[in-house]
Amino acid sequence: MNLPEIDDTYAEAFKTKAAHLLITAATKKLAYIAATEATGFGTSFIGCPAEAGINQYIPPEKTPDNRPGYSIIICQNKTAQVETQLLERIGQCVLTAATTSVFNLLPESDKQTNLGFKLAFFADGYQEKIEKYGKTMYKIPVMSGDFLIEENFGITDAVAGGNLFIMAKTQQSALIAAEAAVNAIEEIPGVITPFPGGIVASGSKVGSKKYEFMHATTNEEYCPTLKNKIPNSKLSDDTNGVYEIVFDGLTEESVIKATKTAIEAIKTIPDVQKISAGNYGGNLGKYKIKLID
Amino acid sequence: MNLPEIDDTYAEAFKTKAAHLLITAATKKLAYIAATEATGFGTSFIGCPAEAGINQYIPPEKTPDNRPGYSIIICQNKTAQVETQLLERIGQCVLTAATTSVFNLLPESDKQTNLGFKLAFFADGYQEKIEKYGKTMYKIPVMSGDFLIEENFGITDAVAGGNLFIMAKTQQSALIAAEAAVNAIEEIPGVITPFPGGIVASGSKVGSKKYEFMHATTNEEYCPTLKNKIPNSKLSDDTNGVYEIVFDGLTEESVIKATKTAIEAIKTIPDVQKISAGNYGGNLGKYKIKLID
Amino acid sequence: MNLPEIDDTYAEAFKTKAAHLLITAATKKLAYIAATEATGFGTSFIGCPAEAGINQYIPPEKTPDNRPGYSIIICQNKTAQVETQLLERIGQCVLTAATTSVFNLLPESDKQTNLGFKLAFFADGYQEKIEKYGKTMYKIPVMSGDFLIEENFGITDAVAGGNLFIMAKTQQSALIAAEAAVNAIEEIPGVITPFPGGIVASGSKVGSKKYEFMHATTNEEYCPTLKNKIPNSKLSDDTNGVYEIVFDGLTEESVIKATKTAIEAIKTIPDVQKISAGNYGGNLGKYKIKLID
Amino acid sequence: MNLPEIDDTYAEAFKTKAAHLLITAATKKLAYIAATEATGFGTSFIGCPAEAGINQYIPPEKTPDNRPGYSIIICQNKTAQVETQLLERIGQCVLTAATTSVFNLLPESDKQTNLGFKLAFFADGYQEKIEKYGKTMYKIPVMSGDFLIEENFGITDAVAGGNLFIMAKTQQSALIAAEAAVNAIEEIPGVITPFPGGIVASGSKVGSKKYEFMHATTNEEYCPTLKNKIPNSKLSDDTNGVYEIVFDGLTEESVIKATKTAIEAIKTIPDVQKISAGNYGGNLGKYKIKLID
Repeated sequence: MNLPEIDDTYAEAFKTKAAHLLITAATKKLAYIAATEATGFGTSFIGCPAEAGINQYIPPEKTPDNRPGYSIIICQNKTAQVETQLLERIGQCVLTAATTSVFNLLPESDKQTNLGFKLAFFADGYQEKIEKYGKTMYKIPVMSGDFLIEENFGITDAVAGGNLFIMAKTQQSALIAAEAAVNAIEEIPGVITPFPGGIVASGSKVGSKKYEFMHATTNEEYCPTLKNKIPNSKLSDDTNGVYEIVFDGLTEESVIKATKTAIEAIKTIPDVQKISAGNYGGNLGKYKIKLID
Repeated sequence: MNLPEIDDTYAEAFKTKAAHLLITAATKKLAYIAATEATGFGTSFIGCPAEAGINQYIPPEKTPDNRPGYSIIICQNKTAQVETQLLERIGQCVLTAATTSVFNLLPESDKQTNLGFKLAFFADGYQEKIEKYGKTMYKIPVMSGDFLIEENFGITDAVAGGNLFIMAKTQQSALIAAEAAVNAIEEIPGVITPFPGGIVASGSKVGSKKYEFMHATTNEEYCPTLKNKIPNSKLSDDTNGVYEIVFDGLTEESVIKATKTAIEAIKTIPDVQKISAGNYGGNLGKYKIKLID
Repeated sequence: MNLPEIDDTYAEAFKTKAAHLLITAATKKLAYIAATEATGFGTSFIGCPAEAGINQYIPPEKTPDNRPGYSIIICQNKTAQVETQLLERIGQCVLTAATTSVFNLLPESDKQTNLGFKLAFFADGYQEKIEKYGKTMYKIPVMSGDFLIEENFGITDAVAGGNLFIMAKTQQSALIAAEAAVNAIEEIPGVITPFPGGIVASGSKVGSKKYEFMHATTNEEYCPTLKNKIPNSKLSDDTNGVYEIVFDGLTEESVIKATKTAIEAIKTIPDVQKISAGNYGGNLGKYKIKLID
Repeated sequence: MNLPEIDDTYAEAFKTKAAHLLITAATKKLAYIAATEATGFGTSFIGCPAEAGINQYIPPEKTPDNRPGYSIIICQNKTAQVETQLLERIGQCVLTAATTSVFNLLPESDKQTNLGFKLAFFADGYQEKIEKYGKTMYKIPVMSGDFLIEENFGITDAVAGGNLFIMAKTQQSALIAAEAAVNAIEEIPGVITPFPGGIVASGSKVGSKKYEFMHATTNEEYCPTLKNKIPNSKLSDDTNGVYEIVFDGLTEESVIKATKTAIEAIKTIPDVQKISAGNYGGNLGKYKIKLID
């Protein structure tokens, strides 16, 4: 099996703000359902209210209430936007979900938002502030029992836009390599892959050459079906599929680790020809995540 | 097995606007991933940008492109809001998803929005309007190949807020009865259950008795842990869990069918005591969906 | 997209015996768990106790007890072997599974085996023969409640060994085409794809050229990594992956339909080069399922 | 929430033999499909060819080939039976599964069986013995590429029949508590829960009071629907559901840890009344796993 060429380039990543929460439930499946709903419609800042995703499964032994849980990350550009997203996503998609509780995974962040205090108004006066699991929680009576949520949730600086391009002989080879990369990244603490299944089928460039009103348009230099129609294609003759993976992390280190781990995973799939990454000349983003060391 | 009592009441449902789309992909799993992302963060108008959900799996034999697909429904109060949600949710969560195409399931609606035309600007001039599958489609070159989407998508009047309350001896009996009800509803064409897993753990009343700024608060009369603390609990001594299911349908008939089918499903679960529904005295919603005939 | 060439050949299929059962449960997920366990370790007669698989999801509206269910098919060469497999698989994997009931989907078969009567001895004298759902059932008290199973189960003639070979430019293209084919077949009543995920990675020839004790060995003419090492490879230079799908059906018609439907599904995947099928010169099997009408 | 009473009793467990293998594949999903098929029809020695189950997901960083994998355990009473099960289950359900490789997780066991050597005859002379990943492997050319498997696989003494009984106010409370217990156990290295979904709906006693030919029959003292029909029921008036979980482990320590962890998980579910375990007076099994320290 030939290993893919790795471009000597870098992914350009950006500063963002993020919350990191733990959703527990009576069973693993119930926790997953809540986490999935709460992080849906959250692929890209360009047109979604947030970039959001499930980070990891946290087994019962490692959660405050000894129940299975999923950690999630919700990103937006400004702290106030993260706060709004927390209120709406946790209030609508987790408070409403069967048997859930919610815990703060960033208790040491300087910035703490009192999400639990605010959501507790839903109890219409029946809320109780309690100490449990060594934490300050709100208990909210609901039709199915009591909903428990911590009072405060940290918001931190984070890094958005880590990315890799996977070029392969067929669409399907690039796709399965992307899935393998996502499988590898999902084990890294503090990193999410916010796109559907973690994979981007339609990587974009900033702005447009033709339409002023477009903030992002297709990255035509990497489109296989335009290969022979444009002068500047970056694809070789026998490249027929390109998938991108995009990841956000709580720290630059976690994004570097995700990049490295994803590259190792991509190498396990045959017929991948090249691994590259997207950048904008280095002028827009704060972080340059190099592919080669 | 004792059958549950069925309250002689009705669910009060409301007029809304809805789009009904088909997302196909190379495999069933890929179609599901896209449909899930596109309908996430979509439980309730109160705090979500839309009420959205997967309606049905559509097998390859019944789709225009002979690939597996999922039909989804996206609801908002006004046509313009549905249009915005379509642009954002399909543009961010389906155009970006691996191997997907999108088809209009409401071609006979009077109101048609040219979603495909608009999303095609993403192609930055490389889009093509084509006739395929007997339909007018846009072909948008992307990194993974070509993305295909119909030009127009219908928006129709629909019915939101169909609901049932399930009261049981334990939380878990109510929960599994709710899951059985959701399983039954998901086979009905044109109906979605937008909450996480289709189930509502924290059914609400309109407004608040205590906080003017709250649009919806806990339905304390149905909260088991408040049973002995409030004068007006509607729960009997041995009721310890109440789950609600909420469903939106393209027609009143579909919501009536969902109600009937869900009640039959709930009856198959032991230790359910009563089935009821939420209404507001009949003054707010246009539709009264009776539980008994 | 170039469509694959279809070999003018046929799949050679064989007579077998089969049972067809419905497993229902409180929820769709619980029915799926039972059906999966009961049909596991059931890919091929060569080394498994049976060929077995899930046929279809049967929604609550179409089951006798108004609960979600999965139909399964269990095949063996002789009626007595099917009977043994039923006793073991239903007794060990469905009677033990949460909330299940089991129904006969071949009530009109001439051959009926009294599986329910036999399994009812598990009740150690507490079994009851009852009429329910218009059927003769046994009620077996178990720790979780009562287990219900019909008295008799039909065994019928069936057709094993329907198959297709998918040759593609990369392994991954062949694999996703095989998954698409399985997705299409799983909607056909009375057909199963018994291999893991419905897909065969290691299609075999009958017997061995080298080892007398082997009943089946690798089909070297279709092995991409042997292409340049053997004189008689049937693969072209640019074929790098071949997957097979194998299916068993209750009737020849259902296997013909599966073949046709699978071919249509395979055509939707890019970079598939050829579709063929396995046969043994037509001397071994009763049925010849042609690929081209 | 009232915590359940814990019976001052013990689970009686038995010596068995076990193999412990790692199945890797291109993606997590493909590895799961193979592991599921290979461990199906494997709930109980009483009527299945083995007790088998998935132990854990092993992420790419921790596998020899840097691909996602699942560890599985296959148990039988005697070493020779384990060897037969390995040949059949790995040969039929993993060699045939897409993109898989198989590794030995018991390299330090005294007893090693040359499963890889034997399965390699499938290659009909084209097999190669190679050194890879620091291990001695066989490379078997198949239609989808090459299948890799280690030469030797360890077989070890193990412990079967760890168990807990969960008694609750409703069937559904016992069921969800059992699911929570299984979720907790599945994080423990070296332990499997071989029954469907890890849960036993029909716990049995040894032998029969009425039918000499039965090796195991319903445990009537714990059957809720027999409570008022037999003199010796062990269930209180308000117990309506009992589920059992059964687990096998590679060591007594792992079974003790599973017991402890499962009890903690069960305690998180409301309306569970009592936790007990099955034993036979201590005369049959070598191990007594106490519930209270």
